[in-house]
Amino acid sequence: MGYASLYPSVSSVTLNVMKILITGGAGFLGVGLAGEFLNSEQNQILTELVLADIAPLRDSVLAADKRVRSVTGDLRGLLKGDLLNGVDGIFHLAAAVSGECEADIDAGMRANLDTTRALLDACRALAKPPRLVFSSSLAVYGGEMPDVIADTTLPMPQNSYGAQKFICEQLIADYTRKGYVDGRSVRLPTVTVRPGKPNKAASGFMSGIIREPLAGVDAVCPVDPQTGVWVTSPRYAARGLIAAFETPPEKWGSRIAMNLPGLSVRVSEMLAALKNCAGEKAAARVRVEIDDTISRIVGGWPWRFDTARARALGLTGPAAMDDIVAEYRADYPQAVQAR
Amino acid sequence: MGYASLYPSVSSVTLNVMKILITGGAGFLGVGLAGEFLNSEQNQILTELVLADIAPLRDSVLAADKRVRSVTGDLRGLLKGDLLNGVDGIFHLAAAVSGECEADIDAGMRANLDTTRALLDACRALAKPPRLVFSSSLAVYGGEMPDVIADTTLPMPQNSYGAQKFICEQLIADYTRKGYVDGRSVRLPTVTVRPGKPNKAASGFMSGIIREPLAGVDAVCPVDPQTGVWVTSPRYAARGLIAAFETPPEKWGSRIAMNLPGLSVRVSEMLAALKNCAGEKAAARVRVEIDDTISRIVGGWPWRFDTARARALGLTGPAAMDDIVAEYRADYPQAVQAR
Repeated sequence: MGYASLYPSVSSVTLNVMKILITGGAGFLGVGLAGEFLNSEQNQILTELVLADIAPLRDSVLAADKRVRSVTGDLRGLLKGDLLNGVDGIFHLAAAVSGECEADIDAGMRANLDTTRALLDACRALAKPPRLVFSSSLAVYGGEMPDVIADTTLPMPQNSYGAQKFICEQLIADYTRKGYVDGRSVRLPTVTVRPGKPNKAASGFMSGIIREPLAGVDAVCPVDPQTGVWVTSPRYAARGLIAAFETPPEKWGSRIAMNLPGLSVRVSEMLAALKNCAGEKAAARVRVEIDDTISRIVGGWPWRFDTARARALGLTGPAAMDDIVAEYRADYPQAVQAR
Repeated sequence: MGYASLYPSVSSVTLNVMKILITGGAGFLGVGLAGEFLNSEQNQILTELVLADIAPLRDSVLAADKRVRSVTGDLRGLLKGDLLNGVDGIFHLAAAVSGECEADIDAGMRANLDTTRALLDACRALAKPPRLVFSSSLAVYGGEMPDVIADTTLPMPQNSYGAQKFICEQLIADYTRKGYVDGRSVRLPTVTVRPGKPNKAASGFMSGIIREPLAGVDAVCPVDPQTGVWVTSPRYAARGLIAAFETPPEKWGSRIAMNLPGLSVRVSEMLAALKNCAGEKAAARVRVEIDDTISRIVGGWPWRFDTARARALGLTGPAAMDDIVAEYRADYPQAVQAR
């Protein structure tokens, strides 16, 4: 499915876009977003795509693209240089993840709150306010919630990462109201299937239970398979961020954050999709071993959303778990064992 | 009406309270709160009441009370000294007001966000986490709203002051979740009748249209008298803050901010109360001269609230506008002209 068919009504605003910055550009999501952006039909008007990250860029395809410039360092330090010179648009993905923030609140506050504020103040100092897309997260939600989450549902963060994301949303809304930046915040569902090694995120198993069996490796499902989760695929996440970027301010509407469309599935349905796509033998590689901590965290996340506002803008999510598995198999053939 | 009769179910927790700090303690609300606190039935367990403010304390009664210590200076500077040594409870009222924040966002961010964060980090460094009551405001609300605001209504701040207050609420919730402080945020209605000179707050007229006629001075009402507003009196505001302080954490419940009970009145009802209390001649001193800016700001504020959570804790608001006028006449007899 091509990019243009997903978002046929791309605004003419994008035709003026020349220089784009992605913070966290060497990370999993940043690399996927950069690839999607470079392959989009709008790429002829892109002169420079800057990928800023504290870690070096390891993606050889991106590194070889002459439009891409990779910059390595702490974002607050880079902002003191020429990082924002002539920038038209920013995707702000750089963040400390939930585990880090919970273990070291100061590190989380610096990486998430202080850095975002420094970025906003640097935007404000520019002659022309850039457009900025901030990647927030369903982690802003928690505690007592209605059965279905809407953009107007009050987030009650139950971890420092979610609190910091929600605070950044408020800063972006206020700086946008003041005209310092043309900002919009989008909350991503859990992105699956992530390639590579397992990580220690509570959500990590949502990739592992698909990725590992496809590679011929056993995997553990640490939650009751009846648990419901809210997911999207890497490509849909990237396309959602790009669509948020391309929406003109008058169409974007409210300054409150927008929940990106995703897929509400039970973990059992994820396992059924694995079986559909890769057969009985692959599915048999997953065993359920309940982990109370992970079950409590993941069980505390919402998994049913009303994303009418996002859908009205043409933003979409994956239609079925089978499509998510198929996307992974197509994008990472080297990580999939032949049947 | 005595303090004890308003809040009969005072927790035994308060019997351990010894040293209290009020930031913004020399301001209108801080002075009222200090007076209410010193006069409460719990005062025998209070050994020291520290009033910290950037402005000097001008209230001679408080200054003469041997339990009161007044400290003047910037709060972030004072926190580097011994301000929090041995403190059991904090009322954090110090803030830049809406007009300042809108005119100078950096000043607002420093005075509201950075100072609150410094206070929270200083609390976290103490051996025993103090209890902290944060005075937030109905100014967090704006934009599209339901007809009746509940604690679970998503605030969409339409000014930097409201955004900063809402951000501080999030910080306090997260620091409380982490056990660094025993915090709770309460959102105050517009407090009227304030004594003294008119100020430039958009809400200033809500005091002026009562205070000036009572002093034999003409006043302007800058909004359509049909405008609805959400108000409380100085004493009810102070008592609400004290009750929030005295509520044990398990009774306080959710870490989201609590809207304090107030009174939903139309400005015309405020003028009718003036007439009831002070007669035809006083009421005739108010003339309506619509100010578009003030009308837009005040008209954008919510004025109907569901405060069930606060009321379940025994928090109350004034029953009628007549009571608010009567409180002002009783507390500031020197500012009221004989009829």
